[in-house]
Amino acid sequence: MHSIEFYRNEFISYLTSKTVSKEPLNLYTPITYILGLGGKRLRPTLVLMATEVFGTDYRKALDAALAIEVFHNFSLVHDDIMDDAPLRRGKETVHEKWDINTGILSGDAMLINAYQLFENYDGQMFRNLAQLFSKTAIEVCEGQQYDVDFETRDDVTQLEYLKMIEYKTAVLVAAALKMGAIIAEAPEEQQQSIYDFGRYLGIAFQLQDDYLDAFGDPETFGKQVGGDIIENKKTYLYLKAMELGSDEEKKALSDMFSIHPDDPSGKIEQIKKIFRQTGAAGETTMAIETYTQKAFEVLEKLAVSDEKKGILEKFGKGLMVRRV
Amino acid sequence: MHSIEFYRNEFISYLTSKTVSKEPLNLYTPITYILGLGGKRLRPTLVLMATEVFGTDYRKALDAALAIEVFHNFSLVHDDIMDDAPLRRGKETVHEKWDINTGILSGDAMLINAYQLFENYDGQMFRNLAQLFSKTAIEVCEGQQYDVDFETRDDVTQLEYLKMIEYKTAVLVAAALKMGAIIAEAPEEQQQSIYDFGRYLGIAFQLQDDYLDAFGDPETFGKQVGGDIIENKKTYLYLKAMELGSDEEKKALSDMFSIHPDDPSGKIEQIKKIFRQTGAAGETTMAIETYTQKAFEVLEKLAVSDEKKGILEKFGKGLMVRRV
Repeated sequence: MHSIEFYRNEFISYLTSKTVSKEPLNLYTPITYILGLGGKRLRPTLVLMATEVFGTDYRKALDAALAIEVFHNFSLVHDDIMDDAPLRRGKETVHEKWDINTGILSGDAMLINAYQLFENYDGQMFRNLAQLFSKTAIEVCEGQQYDVDFETRDDVTQLEYLKMIEYKTAVLVAAALKMGAIIAEAPEEQQQSIYDFGRYLGIAFQLQDDYLDAFGDPETFGKQVGGDIIENKKTYLYLKAMELGSDEEKKALSDMFSIHPDDPSGKIEQIKKIFRQTGAAGETTMAIETYTQKAFEVLEKLAVSDEKKGILEKFGKGLMVRRV
Repeated sequence: MHSIEFYRNEFISYLTSKTVSKEPLNLYTPITYILGLGGKRLRPTLVLMATEVFGTDYRKALDAALAIEVFHNFSLVHDDIMDDAPLRRGKETVHEKWDINTGILSGDAMLINAYQLFENYDGQMFRNLAQLFSKTAIEVCEGQQYDVDFETRDDVTQLEYLKMIEYKTAVLVAAALKMGAIIAEAPEEQQQSIYDFGRYLGIAFQLQDDYLDAFGDPETFGKQVGGDIIENKKTYLYLKAMELGSDEEKKALSDMFSIHPDDPSGKIEQIKKIFRQTGAAGETTMAIETYTQKAFEVLEKLAVSDEKKGILEKFGKGLMVRRV
C-alpha cells in the first residue's frame, strides 16, 4: 500500500486530466470551476485506499473515485443554492459567481456525469457500483430534506438528528469505501464492514463539522464560522444544550434561535457561551469520540493485514484532528 | 398489438400503483404532485409501443417507461424554475406551489429514482438502458443550456436552433422508442432506425410546440400562450421571420425582442402579425411537415409488419394534429 498523500495526489492528477473544457461552455465551465476549488478530496481518496486494502490496484478505482467526487460536488452546488451560501472553500459558490439557473443545470449535468463514469466497469461490477451509488444518492437527498425540515421544527430529537447527518454525510463516506471493496471483489460481509467503518466515521466527521462551525478557526475551517447559528440550525450542539441547559439557558437559546439580526456577531458569541456553559460543547466532543471509536472497533474485525488496518486507522485519526 | 389508448392507460395504472407517499414528505409529495398532473404520457407510451413493435410483451417495459416519465418530469420541474414559469399543464408549477429549494431537491431525487427503475432489468439490458439514459439525459441538459444561451445571443443560426431542440426534446422521444427496442432485444440497426424515427418526430413536435406557443388555443395548449414571445425566445418562427422579413419588419421584430412590457398582450399580437406576414408561420408549418415526413420514411424501412408500422404511423400522425 501507498501513503494517503500518494492516493490523494494520484486522484488529483486524474481529476485534472479528466476536467477538460467543452461546449456548451456555460454548462461545463462551472463544473470545472467547482471541481477545481480543491478541498480535502477525502471521499475519492477513500475509494482508492479501500481498493488497495482489499488487494486490487488503485488505478482500477480512479473512475469510481471521480464519480464520488463529482457527485459530492454536485450536492455542494445544489445545497449552496438552497442554503443561500456565498462561499465554498473560501471562494464564491457557483450560483454566486454565475446565477441560480447555472447552479441548477450544471449540478444536474454533474449528477449524470457521475453515473457515466461507472460505464468504465464491466458487467456485474457496473451494476453493483451504480446500484450502491443510486441508493446513496437518494439517501443524501433525503438527508438534505430532513435538514431543511428541521429548521422549522422545534421538536427534533437527537435520534432524528443523527439519522439526518448519517444520510446527508456519512453514507457517502461509507459508499466511497464500499466501492473500493466492490472493485476489489471483496466478500459481501467485508464490503458491509468497511461500509460501517465509513458510516461511523462519517457521523463523527459531521458532528465535528457542527462543532467546528461554532468553535472552528475561520482561517482553516473554509466555511463561514457561525453559519449554522446564523441560519438557526438545530445542530447536535443546540439539541444537547436544550437537553442539558437550565430553564433560563433554554429560553435564551430558544429566543435567539428565532431571530435573524443584521449583524449576527453578538448572537453567535452568546450562543457559543451557552453551548459551553451547558456542557453541550463537551458532550458533542464526547459523541465525536464515541462514533470514532465505533468506527475503529468495526475496523478491527476487518479480515485484512494489520498494516492495511493501520492505514485506514491513520486516515480516520487524521480526519478527526481538525483544528479548533 | 394493442391500441395507443391501451398502452397509455396501462402506463397510467402502473404509474398510479407506484407513486406512493413516503418520508420525508416534503421531498416526495411534490414528486407525486407533478407526476399526477397528467399530460399526454407520450414518452412512456412510446416505450411500451416500441417493445411490442419488436415482439415483446409491453409489461416488461413498464419500469423503463416509468423511468422516462420520471426523468421527463424532473426536467420540467428544473426547467420551470429556470424559466420562472407559473403554470404547467394548467396547474401551479412545483416551485410556485412550494418553493425553489423544493423544486431543486425533489427534481434531484426524481433523476436518481429514474436510474433506480432500470435496476429491474438484468445484466446487459440494465447497462444498455442506463447508458442510453445517461447519454440522453446529458444531451437534454446541453439542449437546455443552449436554449438559455440563445436568449442573450443575436447570431443564432437555424442550424444551431435545430440542434438545440433536437437535444432538448427530440432525443428523449428517440430514446423512449429505442428503450423498447432494447427490451425486445431487437438488432442494433433496428434500434437505430426506431431512434431516428423518434428523433425526427421529436424535432417536428418541438417545432410545432414553438408554433403553438404563438398560434395555439389557450384552452387546449396547457402552457401560457405567447410565453416564448414574452421571454424574447428566438424560436424557429423568429429566426425564419428574421430571414424572410423586410428591413422594416426585421427592425420591428428586433426592437420588440429587447423589451419586457408589463402588459405583453400588445407585443404578442404585433409579433404574431409579423410571423404571419413575413411567411415565417407558413415556413414553420412546412418544416414541421418535412421532419414528420423524414420520420415516416425511416419508419418505412423498419423490418416489422405493416400492421406494426401502422400503429407507429398512427401515433405520429395523432401527435402532429394538435389544435391551433
